[in-house]
Amino acid sequence: MTTQGVRIGIAGINGRVGRLLREEVTTGGGILSGGTARDAAPASDVFATLDALAPRCDVVIDFTHAATVRTHADILARAGVAWVLGTTGLSAADLEAVRTAAGRIPVVHAANYSPGVTLVTRLARQMAAALPSATYDAEILEMHHRQKVDAPSGTALAIGQAVADGRGIDLASHIEDGRTGHTGPRRADAIGFAVLRGGQIVGEHTVSFTSATEQIALTHRSFDRRIYATGAVRAALWLRGQASGLYDMEDVLGLD
Amino acid sequence: MTTQGVRIGIAGINGRVGRLLREEVTTGGGILSGGTARDAAPASDVFATLDALAPRCDVVIDFTHAATVRTHADILARAGVAWVLGTTGLSAADLEAVRTAAGRIPVVHAANYSPGVTLVTRLARQMAAALPSATYDAEILEMHHRQKVDAPSGTALAIGQAVADGRGIDLASHIEDGRTGHTGPRRADAIGFAVLRGGQIVGEHTVSFTSATEQIALTHRSFDRRIYATGAVRAALWLRGQASGLYDMEDVLGLD
Amino acid sequence: MTTQGVRIGIAGINGRVGRLLREEVTTGGGILSGGTARDAAPASDVFATLDALAPRCDVVIDFTHAATVRTHADILARAGVAWVLGTTGLSAADLEAVRTAAGRIPVVHAANYSPGVTLVTRLARQMAAALPSATYDAEILEMHHRQKVDAPSGTALAIGQAVADGRGIDLASHIEDGRTGHTGPRRADAIGFAVLRGGQIVGEHTVSFTSATEQIALTHRSFDRRIYATGAVRAALWLRGQASGLYDMEDVLGLD
Amino acid sequence: MTTQGVRIGIAGINGRVGRLLREEVTTGGGILSGGTARDAAPASDVFATLDALAPRCDVVIDFTHAATVRTHADILARAGVAWVLGTTGLSAADLEAVRTAAGRIPVVHAANYSPGVTLVTRLARQMAAALPSATYDAEILEMHHRQKVDAPSGTALAIGQAVADGRGIDLASHIEDGRTGHTGPRRADAIGFAVLRGGQIVGEHTVSFTSATEQIALTHRSFDRRIYATGAVRAALWLRGQASGLYDMEDVLGLD
Repeated sequence: MTTQGVRIGIAGINGRVGRLLREEVTTGGGILSGGTARDAAPASDVFATLDALAPRCDVVIDFTHAATVRTHADILARAGVAWVLGTTGLSAADLEAVRTAAGRIPVVHAANYSPGVTLVTRLARQMAAALPSATYDAEILEMHHRQKVDAPSGTALAIGQAVADGRGIDLASHIEDGRTGHTGPRRADAIGFAVLRGGQIVGEHTVSFTSATEQIALTHRSFDRRIYATGAVRAALWLRGQASGLYDMEDVLGLD
Repeated sequence: MTTQGVRIGIAGINGRVGRLLREEVTTGGGILSGGTARDAAPASDVFATLDALAPRCDVVIDFTHAATVRTHADILARAGVAWVLGTTGLSAADLEAVRTAAGRIPVVHAANYSPGVTLVTRLARQMAAALPSATYDAEILEMHHRQKVDAPSGTALAIGQAVADGRGIDLASHIEDGRTGHTGPRRADAIGFAVLRGGQIVGEHTVSFTSATEQIALTHRSFDRRIYATGAVRAALWLRGQASGLYDMEDVLGLD
Repeated sequence: MTTQGVRIGIAGINGRVGRLLREEVTTGGGILSGGTARDAAPASDVFATLDALAPRCDVVIDFTHAATVRTHADILARAGVAWVLGTTGLSAADLEAVRTAAGRIPVVHAANYSPGVTLVTRLARQMAAALPSATYDAEILEMHHRQKVDAPSGTALAIGQAVADGRGIDLASHIEDGRTGHTGPRRADAIGFAVLRGGQIVGEHTVSFTSATEQIALTHRSFDRRIYATGAVRAALWLRGQASGLYDMEDVLGLD
Repeated sequence: MTTQGVRIGIAGINGRVGRLLREEVTTGGGILSGGTARDAAPASDVFATLDALAPRCDVVIDFTHAATVRTHADILARAGVAWVLGTTGLSAADLEAVRTAAGRIPVVHAANYSPGVTLVTRLARQMAAALPSATYDAEILEMHHRQKVDAPSGTALAIGQAVADGRGIDLASHIEDGRTGHTGPRRADAIGFAVLRGGQIVGEHTVSFTSATEQIALTHRSFDRRIYATGAVRAALWLRGQASGLYDMEDVLGLD
């Protein structure tokens, strides 16, 4: 399979992520076939609707809004165009629409397109499965820039979910975060979270497993926000050659 | 000045810290002249009261309780015996009694006798003075064993106090800890705290200053609880040769 | 399968590792059936030869010398006793003897019995396979106590071997270590090593993969030498229930 | 003293550092009065010689070549213009010329203008003085991008020099770097160096002091090469108000 000649469209091409994607499509070896924007000027490659863009594309990369997911699913499935979906905060009905579309077209859906974060999440699941909570305490530390308004980060929670999956437990009932004052001893089975903020740190995450005799820690540091766009373009190039179905970044990276 | 022949007594010699101190006095080059214990057997070197122990000592090391501080201050000042005081949680009246005693005998008072923590606290104050909060965000991370019941650790708060001192601000109104949920952006001037728990970690502390272009971080790791006893004995040996007055571990280590 | 009632013998029970193993057998839930020692006193559980010890055991743990491997292989295969072998520096003929024995008895052979190091080595292989050398530079850092006389550590080299395996390349021709002076730029495909020495650090290893936009790093810290004995006993308990064959610690930990 | 209105000239304004400086002068609050360049076009603010530029400036920032130092010293001293000098690799005669100029004008001379590195170097000296080599092993780790051709970095060696100064020993005879093969145990008093290379890391340095019971480590990470230009402009603004004399970045930052 060649990645040459993959025509890629960008939903929301004038947004913050859209602009990064625009640069990366060409750098990554794809052909930019255009994008959508609400305020589309009558330019040759920016369209007001996905219906107008889709016929020109082999794949559409979509980091827009949960509100558009069901419409996009319908348009792309009818047009037979592959879909790289990075939108988060989907409802059950949204997810059902994604699955339905994946019956007709190949779809990649992931919360974080960084190859490194994808790998770290997967390895965290394996570590949690191999290092039982009776002996190893799982803790997740993240640091982000001073503007970030929520904690822990979505990626920290995704790593926590991977730890919970590896141990066959539920995340929500095992989170131990926001420690301050009289906390009492650490609960058995807890998945701990700690949060640092400062400077313009793009994102750093560490998941550690500590016993009385050893510690294993896995760290991811992002130096540049472009990494997310790079990963999405990699997913788009990979997708042109796949059967219909629902994939994630572990599939794209060949981690299985 | 020689440290040979310094006779050292230990208040609370049968407690957890007392037993560590007993070993370190000899290792460190002092002469163990005995101790106090509530359940003193009629042995030659364990006494029921500090009154009985004091005349045999050049220095008494005291990691007992805040409740005994005023009595001990009185006894040691009258006996002319130097005092290494590691008790925390002192009231204003207790502190006044310590200062009064220091008018007649040399006293070292510190919350943490580890030479490394003392140095880190001092350097944190310098770093905070040199790295203004308009540009550099100060954050403190600590990790301790799973049994620890409070957060952040006393040492983390002492480092935070040093940062506040270096910046000429009040600590209490600048603490940003227990981050979870919608926190909003980091406040200017905040001193952040994050807390990890796991395994049998004796104590790890990192204070970092992060700007848009660089990060400076200072880390202390304790491998062994004996470090606290080692530092207290070092303070005791140093004290025998000093004029009356109130000293801290920075004085003992010659950091000024 | 139950681990109750597994009778474990220790070759070289009076050596440094042997003494740790002696404690861990009982702690770990096994039954200590005795050991061998060159200077065996006529005690009930220490024997001068493995021939005398073997009939009393379900499993023998052996961290002795390469010189004894062929004899031990023969004795244990004939006696039908499982073998946990931690001896390193084996010749081709030694390894052949181990494989022959494994045709008749279950054998675990590993260079490092720490569960954490085993896991780290395996994850390093996966990381190297997922993170191509054209983009990600692999570097290994280790720190050990000041007495250590060789560099890099055997475990660092084992992690390097795992990276080489994951990339399908040869380790020896890709090592870049001992950097000093005019080194020239980093070679493509290099596997770098850096070495720190100090204090009484039991062992710390980090393997990192760094691209222009992100870094993924995996760290192992040993707090206590007992971890090696704990892992060997875990291997012994696991082995009683296995078919004949040659296993490694990844098998014991169920990582496949 | 006000920093308003400081007229700053840049020697080598079209070089890699020069271009960064050009941006930072304005951002930092200075007035760019022009620069020198060998291929000066007849533009209003780029001159072929420092003689032509100097009369328009209060301060000249100079990161050019060792070969020009003696000429520049002479021109600036005669013109009464302050000098921020970042050139390295100076000969004894060059240094003598700098000192002579400093008899008539204020000069800042430093190998690294990052405020963080300046602070780290100073703190390393203090740490070394407080943590004796009989107990604490000093090690320096650095990581830089894959293109770097020498090791250890100049900044790592400057930190090593600070450690040596703090201990009152000579650096050259205490360096222990390039560890590989049979190294023997760590020498008492050694100052160790370890080197990592990878990705596009701008520069990371850690100096650590490790005893049997604790470790103190100080880390600097540069996120952006602009930090060097920012520091040089800060030095230039500080310099306009100083008496003639030779200063370093510790003076600029008020660390004394």
